[in-house]
Amino acid sequence: MKQPLTEEKVFKDPVHNYIHVQDTIIWRLINTKEFQRLRRIRQLGTSYLTFHGAEHSRFSHSLGVYEITRRIISQFERSGYKDWIPEESLLTLCAALLHDLGHGPFSHSIEEAFEMNHEDWTCRIILEDTEITEILRDVEEDFPRKVASVIAKTYEHEIVVNLVSSPLDADRMDYLLRDAYYTGVNYGTIDIDRILRMLRPYNGRVVVKESGMHAIEDYLMSRYQMYWQVYFHPVTRSSEIILRQIFRRAKELFQEGYNFSFMINPLEDLFRGEVTVKQYLMLDEALVQTAFMQWTLEQDELLSDLCTRFIHRKLYKYVEMENLDSDMITEIRSSFAAAGLHPEYDLEIDFPTDLPYDVFRPGEAFDNKQILLLDRHDQLREISEVSDIVRSISGIHRGRHHLYFPQDKLREALTRLPSSIAEIFAK
Amino acid sequence: MKQPLTEEKVFKDPVHNYIHVQDTIIWRLINTKEFQRLRRIRQLGTSYLTFHGAEHSRFSHSLGVYEITRRIISQFERSGYKDWIPEESLLTLCAALLHDLGHGPFSHSIEEAFEMNHEDWTCRIILEDTEITEILRDVEEDFPRKVASVIAKTYEHEIVVNLVSSPLDADRMDYLLRDAYYTGVNYGTIDIDRILRMLRPYNGRVVVKESGMHAIEDYLMSRYQMYWQVYFHPVTRSSEIILRQIFRRAKELFQEGYNFSFMINPLEDLFRGEVTVKQYLMLDEALVQTAFMQWTLEQDELLSDLCTRFIHRKLYKYVEMENLDSDMITEIRSSFAAAGLHPEYDLEIDFPTDLPYDVFRPGEAFDNKQILLLDRHDQLREISEVSDIVRSISGIHRGRHHLYFPQDKLREALTRLPSSIAEIFAK
Amino acid sequence: MKQPLTEEKVFKDPVHNYIHVQDTIIWRLINTKEFQRLRRIRQLGTSYLTFHGAEHSRFSHSLGVYEITRRIISQFERSGYKDWIPEESLLTLCAALLHDLGHGPFSHSIEEAFEMNHEDWTCRIILEDTEITEILRDVEEDFPRKVASVIAKTYEHEIVVNLVSSPLDADRMDYLLRDAYYTGVNYGTIDIDRILRMLRPYNGRVVVKESGMHAIEDYLMSRYQMYWQVYFHPVTRSSEIILRQIFRRAKELFQEGYNFSFMINPLEDLFRGEVTVKQYLMLDEALVQTAFMQWTLEQDELLSDLCTRFIHRKLYKYVEMENLDSDMITEIRSSFAAAGLHPEYDLEIDFPTDLPYDVFRPGEAFDNKQILLLDRHDQLREISEVSDIVRSISGIHRGRHHLYFPQDKLREALTRLPSSIAEIFAK
Amino acid sequence: MKQPLTEEKVFKDPVHNYIHVQDTIIWRLINTKEFQRLRRIRQLGTSYLTFHGAEHSRFSHSLGVYEITRRIISQFERSGYKDWIPEESLLTLCAALLHDLGHGPFSHSIEEAFEMNHEDWTCRIILEDTEITEILRDVEEDFPRKVASVIAKTYEHEIVVNLVSSPLDADRMDYLLRDAYYTGVNYGTIDIDRILRMLRPYNGRVVVKESGMHAIEDYLMSRYQMYWQVYFHPVTRSSEIILRQIFRRAKELFQEGYNFSFMINPLEDLFRGEVTVKQYLMLDEALVQTAFMQWTLEQDELLSDLCTRFIHRKLYKYVEMENLDSDMITEIRSSFAAAGLHPEYDLEIDFPTDLPYDVFRPGEAFDNKQILLLDRHDQLREISEVSDIVRSISGIHRGRHHLYFPQDKLREALTRLPSSIAEIFAK
Repeated sequence: MKQPLTEEKVFKDPVHNYIHVQDTIIWRLINTKEFQRLRRIRQLGTSYLTFHGAEHSRFSHSLGVYEITRRIISQFERSGYKDWIPEESLLTLCAALLHDLGHGPFSHSIEEAFEMNHEDWTCRIILEDTEITEILRDVEEDFPRKVASVIAKTYEHEIVVNLVSSPLDADRMDYLLRDAYYTGVNYGTIDIDRILRMLRPYNGRVVVKESGMHAIEDYLMSRYQMYWQVYFHPVTRSSEIILRQIFRRAKELFQEGYNFSFMINPLEDLFRGEVTVKQYLMLDEALVQTAFMQWTLEQDELLSDLCTRFIHRKLYKYVEMENLDSDMITEIRSSFAAAGLHPEYDLEIDFPTDLPYDVFRPGEAFDNKQILLLDRHDQLREISEVSDIVRSISGIHRGRHHLYFPQDKLREALTRLPSSIAEIFAK
Repeated sequence: MKQPLTEEKVFKDPVHNYIHVQDTIIWRLINTKEFQRLRRIRQLGTSYLTFHGAEHSRFSHSLGVYEITRRIISQFERSGYKDWIPEESLLTLCAALLHDLGHGPFSHSIEEAFEMNHEDWTCRIILEDTEITEILRDVEEDFPRKVASVIAKTYEHEIVVNLVSSPLDADRMDYLLRDAYYTGVNYGTIDIDRILRMLRPYNGRVVVKESGMHAIEDYLMSRYQMYWQVYFHPVTRSSEIILRQIFRRAKELFQEGYNFSFMINPLEDLFRGEVTVKQYLMLDEALVQTAFMQWTLEQDELLSDLCTRFIHRKLYKYVEMENLDSDMITEIRSSFAAAGLHPEYDLEIDFPTDLPYDVFRPGEAFDNKQILLLDRHDQLREISEVSDIVRSISGIHRGRHHLYFPQDKLREALTRLPSSIAEIFAK
Repeated sequence: MKQPLTEEKVFKDPVHNYIHVQDTIIWRLINTKEFQRLRRIRQLGTSYLTFHGAEHSRFSHSLGVYEITRRIISQFERSGYKDWIPEESLLTLCAALLHDLGHGPFSHSIEEAFEMNHEDWTCRIILEDTEITEILRDVEEDFPRKVASVIAKTYEHEIVVNLVSSPLDADRMDYLLRDAYYTGVNYGTIDIDRILRMLRPYNGRVVVKESGMHAIEDYLMSRYQMYWQVYFHPVTRSSEIILRQIFRRAKELFQEGYNFSFMINPLEDLFRGEVTVKQYLMLDEALVQTAFMQWTLEQDELLSDLCTRFIHRKLYKYVEMENLDSDMITEIRSSFAAAGLHPEYDLEIDFPTDLPYDVFRPGEAFDNKQILLLDRHDQLREISEVSDIVRSISGIHRGRHHLYFPQDKLREALTRLPSSIAEIFAK
Repeated sequence: MKQPLTEEKVFKDPVHNYIHVQDTIIWRLINTKEFQRLRRIRQLGTSYLTFHGAEHSRFSHSLGVYEITRRIISQFERSGYKDWIPEESLLTLCAALLHDLGHGPFSHSIEEAFEMNHEDWTCRIILEDTEITEILRDVEEDFPRKVASVIAKTYEHEIVVNLVSSPLDADRMDYLLRDAYYTGVNYGTIDIDRILRMLRPYNGRVVVKESGMHAIEDYLMSRYQMYWQVYFHPVTRSSEIILRQIFRRAKELFQEGYNFSFMINPLEDLFRGEVTVKQYLMLDEALVQTAFMQWTLEQDELLSDLCTRFIHRKLYKYVEMENLDSDMITEIRSSFAAAGLHPEYDLEIDFPTDLPYDVFRPGEAFDNKQILLLDRHDQLREISEVSDIVRSISGIHRGRHHLYFPQDKLREALTRLPSSIAEIFAK
């Protein structure tokens, strides 16, 4: 089923040094227009507004995920582990390479605004007559469906699904390393060579040799730090909030029949809620940024203000609050309305939270979200049973409310707010 | 004249670890919309199509140039060198930060296609009533003019001009390090700490202490390698060629009065040749990519084909030729025309060349393109007089012709070409 | 009091890139024979037998500690923090540079075997008429005493003592970075630039700005990982055990009046317990290794066997046991004796343990072992009150017994041991 | 012939991340006392007195050479190149691992002083009944001889010899990387992954695919820089000179029947010129340093002074001279004698020189010192024919005389020297 290239091809990659392509199918998939489109979608959405180095694309990340998967499989095959199915290697590699294919521009925000899901889009692009579909069909007629089912986690061989999505999958390993590299934040540096050496296929799962425990502890801590230092950074959240508000406002206006001075497809179809695969593939961050730039000149003041904020990075400020209940929130919003502020657009409340690792409760069955250690006697144990560190941090459920608001407007309205509310924002 | 911040601000940067901002003016300049626009212009144009990691922006680079300049000045001031003028430090920092402000999207190609020059635009943005101008005026009324004159190399104090533009300037040092980091190519790694330690202000110039000679040799070799490995990479050249052809074709069509299905400002004004500063500031890579994406659907086949090639990365192939004279070129072009190929659009000839370092000829005066070493007796010597390596490589004038062409069209036309021509492209 | 060098001197250092020496006193101290002796003492004792790269000396580390301290002080002075005493900077730098001066060869083992303490030796070398003493006296007559009192933690200005010894001192930061670099284990990589930027002198202590909390979390986790991955590595412990046994055996023999075929000073005086400063300064790892090499040929079989094991790296093996009480230990030792094994030399029991961070108990006063965060309102809080991660890991008191033994002898004696004991070692 | 380990073993290595051992023979060889001895011999001799980080041993380097060789072979075998002989892989790996086995303490100096050659010692240790010999015999009776013949470059299969010694061999690649890592000098950073990917076995030689030319240029430049920055560093040369003078003086004294207060074997046999393999294996840097330390107390003033200089790093100073002929040298030496200085011990003249790459002269046959490029048509060309850079730097024959002398003695004797001589040293 594999179709080896006569000579291996490589991509120079700052994270993995070289990405090695050894199969014609992989090479052809990379050169499709659907895969090349990922060059126009940033891996970290708006994070580049916080960490100026974070301008890397999902294209780079997808190649990285492929490469890590390739190394895992190659080690499985060199060692001849019996729980691995060598016939599934091309399938696994294709699923690893393509798993992010359906991401849209500024993915999380656009998915929320338009109630879409990138995984569905990934499967549609794989299945609905694209260049990708055609190449996969060259392997076998049913191959596109197989690849999609691995991504949808329904494929019959669990080990393949587990390799592509699990708490230790190539996706997570690549993004930690890559995001650390491009942001310059060095918390994400994990000992990937050691982790890879410790992985074992076992009973339909990828597990970890017990002696790799410390490397996994370090990986979980890196993940935790990257969440708090990078992914949940308040400046990034602020820019995501602006982005969502732009989409929300533009949709409202569209539904009211507002006459946009700039509106082209596939944006129009997106607002209308009728996007075809072909249209979806034309949706990229260049288009979104161009629309926003044009909308800075729109007549609707709210839309124009929000777009100006996004394009020129005049973001909302924020204050942190340790205890904030829903009554309090209602009170703030009404005071805002009373003071002539917009209770929604002028105040966003965010509660970032991350579980560094979900603990295993004795008596429960192992599930896919757990990391299992394999000891010398071939017994499996969930990692938090063995590692003091992981047990200690499991279940930490930290988080504070962050209130985001346009500082200039707030400042001007401060005297019109009750003093108890005003002092929250007065800092 | 300086307005120190109460607390230093930092940007996390993968190349310099932290960028330190200590002055209010610098902080405010960074937050203008004109400077933020540089986030939407890639540092290396189309190189990301060759090196997928090279997605970094001119924003990052400009911060880097500022930071290196800040370090050089800070060392000059700590050491109390008498040839440095401490009063000029804010001016120098502003000029270093802003020197790339006028770059357009895919700068080199757009400048060629529309006969513009980014340095002129930099000066116009600094001088013509932008947010930048206003902040610089807060220093002193004449400050915008001073900054512009440093960039235009006409400022009265030579040492300031020399710090901002010379063969060892902060611009070159940052781009070598940064482009090496983002491409993953490790030839650009120079010992910047050592080079900075060796710089001395001397008689209106920045010169190098003689004991830093080996570090400079290494810097020149890195520069040479980066040119051949990265900047002149044939795949990058191929994408630049497509880009230029798109601009050329679109301009032709525009002049013929062709009815574009997608045409918005500031693109329209650009074609018309009447771009204001305000319009220019709306010009970014998002807009160019959006236009190209829309034009993949244009009626004009040539434009549509070229845009499809660029957007989906179906680039021209190339062959190398060692000896190619103008007669030969004419012959090839006529055969192309005779065979039904387009003699211009279907064939681009490129001759990349770089002088690693221009040698000094004894008897000549020192000019700004030379690197001077300062020995223990305070004598200056041009580096190639002292370094065997630099002398050896000076004047190397390497280069081969590269012929770029659309492989599919060529293949189909091969039989219609004279066999001597056909075999060039037949490989 | 400072005596600036006319031109800064540098040492090339792989960890800090350059070590900057700006004062004549520091330069002269480095060039004394007492300080140069640290080149002949490895930083990590026997760890090079586990991690072959870990061959770095206390000389390198001492320069590193000096450099970090220099950077902290330089930042304190640039920022003009009022709780710092600029007049104490030379004193602090000297104490930082010299704090490890009294370390002997394979320090921990030799201190245990001969009941010595490197801190006492450091103070003696500083005070008792060495080249060091003379240079320090050039600053002021009382300066040697001051430097020694900083190292002995009795100096009157607490902030100076705290800079040189505290849970966030330059010593710990340098060794984490340096040991990680030389072993190749990447768990020790901490963001030292960020930590340094966050340090503040405050009320006689060095505290951390609250926004540096995550960097400190990361530092504590790195420390924890380095302890388990490197400092407590069983192979290193095994070699330390052999080392201690050699010293113990040689001392026994010496006290019995045994006639060593090789015995020279200062070794002889060491056994006699009468080492002068002058003799101590001749004690280095070369001498210890030479003695061991010569003793591989000793008549005493035990000594010869132990030396052979150390020199040719034929170390003891180990088994881990989760629960081991003192009764059990007594039982094993008697069985060993009964089986003709030596109950002491043929069995060493080790229980490595480390507290990643000692938690603060509310109501207690802050002590020097705590890390304090300084919030925006200038309030101090102990870090585990604020950081979930630190609170979680504080007090983890992990550890298992490790039993070390000569595998060849054990194997041969296995049948003579009770089966319950035998199976512990039979693996 | 290979005896694969049931599970691969690894060594953590800062340069290659992990050293992979997959064969029992290799594992056993590493654990012999002869190979472990290399831990007690520094890779860079006295360079640690210049670059304090350069304390790494020949043990580390030998593992590195083995690992690079393993990677080359593994790539040859994966690609199935027909010019490689898979049956020779264990032999090649053993020769790579053991090639430095015969190095003595401070190798170059001791070889010069006692007219020995480390390659001969390597072969003797392999052949003369050591633990090494025994293990190699387990492969086949004749295996020790084969390994020795590869090292002596007389083995019948040229490709094996060429892999172990050639201008692009694993030895050179490891030492560039390793010495750069441990000194902290970043000129040695070569793109080893790319170079390895470009190597091809071809007609009994290892050649380079033409597209790897720039990587080789970079490698040659790195080599050149490392020679001038590190290997020829005047401070290192000064310490080597002291070392050689110590050996010379001690030998003179020994031959005169001088009664050393410290003299043990194998040192005594070395002076006597009758060292057996068994004695040689006891010779390490610990012994040499111990002897020197003891000799600082010798009665012979010259020996005692030289040893004090070496141990406490009070090295000779130097001056550089551009033109120095033999007449001039004679004149200086006589003036020294006349002024009461020792004409030999108080003056050493050094002329370091390195050819970055020896050029090929057209018409000559290819020899083992050349780097050959393999083009697409399977034609070989010597690299300087193709690369402008290599051609430019080939044959550069730079070098200046360095005069080393004891500064204190010279200063005191200056007035007794002719003024023309005095001013050379007066600086």
